[in-house]
Amino acid sequence: MKLTILGCHSATPRINTNPTSQVLEIKNHMFLIDCGEGTQVELRRNKIKFSRIKHIFISHLHGDHYFGLVGLVNTFSLLTRETELHIYAPKGLKEVIILQMKLASSWTKYQLIFHELTSKTSELIYEDEKVEVHTIPLKHRIYTNGFLFKEKENERKLDINLVNAANINVAYFRKLKQGSDVVNEDGILIANEKVTKDPNPPKSYAYCSDTVYNEDIIPIINKSTVLYHESTFLEKNASLCIPTKHSTAKQAATIAKKAHVDTLILGHYSTRYNGYDEFKQEARMIFENVHLAKDGKTFNFD
Amino acid sequence: MKLTILGCHSATPRINTNPTSQVLEIKNHMFLIDCGEGTQVELRRNKIKFSRIKHIFISHLHGDHYFGLVGLVNTFSLLTRETELHIYAPKGLKEVIILQMKLASSWTKYQLIFHELTSKTSELIYEDEKVEVHTIPLKHRIYTNGFLFKEKENERKLDINLVNAANINVAYFRKLKQGSDVVNEDGILIANEKVTKDPNPPKSYAYCSDTVYNEDIIPIINKSTVLYHESTFLEKNASLCIPTKHSTAKQAATIAKKAHVDTLILGHYSTRYNGYDEFKQEARMIFENVHLAKDGKTFNFD
Repeated sequence: MKLTILGCHSATPRINTNPTSQVLEIKNHMFLIDCGEGTQVELRRNKIKFSRIKHIFISHLHGDHYFGLVGLVNTFSLLTRETELHIYAPKGLKEVIILQMKLASSWTKYQLIFHELTSKTSELIYEDEKVEVHTIPLKHRIYTNGFLFKEKENERKLDINLVNAANINVAYFRKLKQGSDVVNEDGILIANEKVTKDPNPPKSYAYCSDTVYNEDIIPIINKSTVLYHESTFLEKNASLCIPTKHSTAKQAATIAKKAHVDTLILGHYSTRYNGYDEFKQEARMIFENVHLAKDGKTFNFD
Repeated sequence: MKLTILGCHSATPRINTNPTSQVLEIKNHMFLIDCGEGTQVELRRNKIKFSRIKHIFISHLHGDHYFGLVGLVNTFSLLTRETELHIYAPKGLKEVIILQMKLASSWTKYQLIFHELTSKTSELIYEDEKVEVHTIPLKHRIYTNGFLFKEKENERKLDINLVNAANINVAYFRKLKQGSDVVNEDGILIANEKVTKDPNPPKSYAYCSDTVYNEDIIPIINKSTVLYHESTFLEKNASLCIPTKHSTAKQAATIAKKAHVDTLILGHYSTRYNGYDEFKQEARMIFENVHLAKDGKTFNFD
């Protein structure tokens, strides 16, 4: 599981800071999460192949989280994309994109599939053999979701030396990986745990931006491998959190601690601050394993 | 009169090339012309004060000419702008912007005034004491206008030594600038041309992007000081001009020659080319005074 931060600043794009967008690589997927203005250029800068993006998740319809989307959809067309593209976003985005395509007399040749989100409780919005994606209802000024990306239970690992020593036919390897006991070439039942090892524990990534401090999300993100939680402000500006519906670094750390996650990544910094070390210091008072998001930074969780 | 190119490439924004946007400084105005994705960052990079932009002209509703506008409108809000903003654009853009503001529950506190363009003939869309702006109907795949920015006739220049020698009261200076003869302190009529000089001839800037070769624009842009004419292609790819409704460098130069302009600036290059010197060479075969637009380049016409 690998996370690349394309942008992690709030409000407006600036010369050296990008609004929110990130790419999560998980089980061979490249999930694009939010898409502020300039995201397509950051995808190029980070050498992420456009064709690998098949699912885009938009948290909410404030510009710093989606103004780059219509341009990306358009660029995919110019690059003669044929693969279908799924967009998971609050109701309303479809109308924005369709209106702009209509005014340009320019429709995508690839299939554009909108999954309009309206639920106020967590729901499963994507699933395949290896991963699930659930919404995380957040509390912000407008309807907003975070997203929980979860690997499914991995298969058991074969200890190939023990498997061979046990004289098991290759036809049974699949069953072994799935946890079954099997009969070997000599007709003897071989207990699964004698020739396999426990799988890697499934990883999960919880993305929570933008939100006011909200303990309701804890059961949903509980024990996630990684939590990205917005920290627009420092505690010294905590009074801004209620009117703007944002969080401080301390609040993000409190959520991380209460949800027993392994790793916390902070981001969505207000542009009022010059540096971000203080965010880390503030969060570390509550929760030890804190990292700072930075545009262009990749986190590897393997 | 000063022109700053923020972006001059067609289609998609890339790491080192921006889609179309430019700022024309004329008679103390800062007119923003087209606004591709990333324009607000380029305004910052070129140190153009956001507050000086009061009029934005959008040629047509293809993304590479306006996808940066909604973000700029939004950023003006975040910067607590109070000055009104005028947007001159094809009908439809207002609906796009209003819809996105509605979905964000976020309205500008400053007045946003849309001037929706629908006319197929040239029309006067802005006028004050010193400048006029006219549309230049272009032929493209969708409804498109270029814009002609014209200084009005300048005032006559006082020769201050001669004025003083002629014993003229300061109260008459305004009349002198306007071309009148005046009576001096001794009661003698002073002929205007004896104490004033001819004004600088008024300058004009014709912006023509995007368009197929179209001689209908020649009477409108005739004798302009500067013509920016798109040259998406070189003649070797001229066959692409008809289906895409674009022009070659040679065609742009032919328009410049037939319209007797002083200076031609080429731009809106297709990203298929690696360098642009060939555009200049091709145009120079027809018209001598050719310049290449380049992102971040400023042309001074004073």
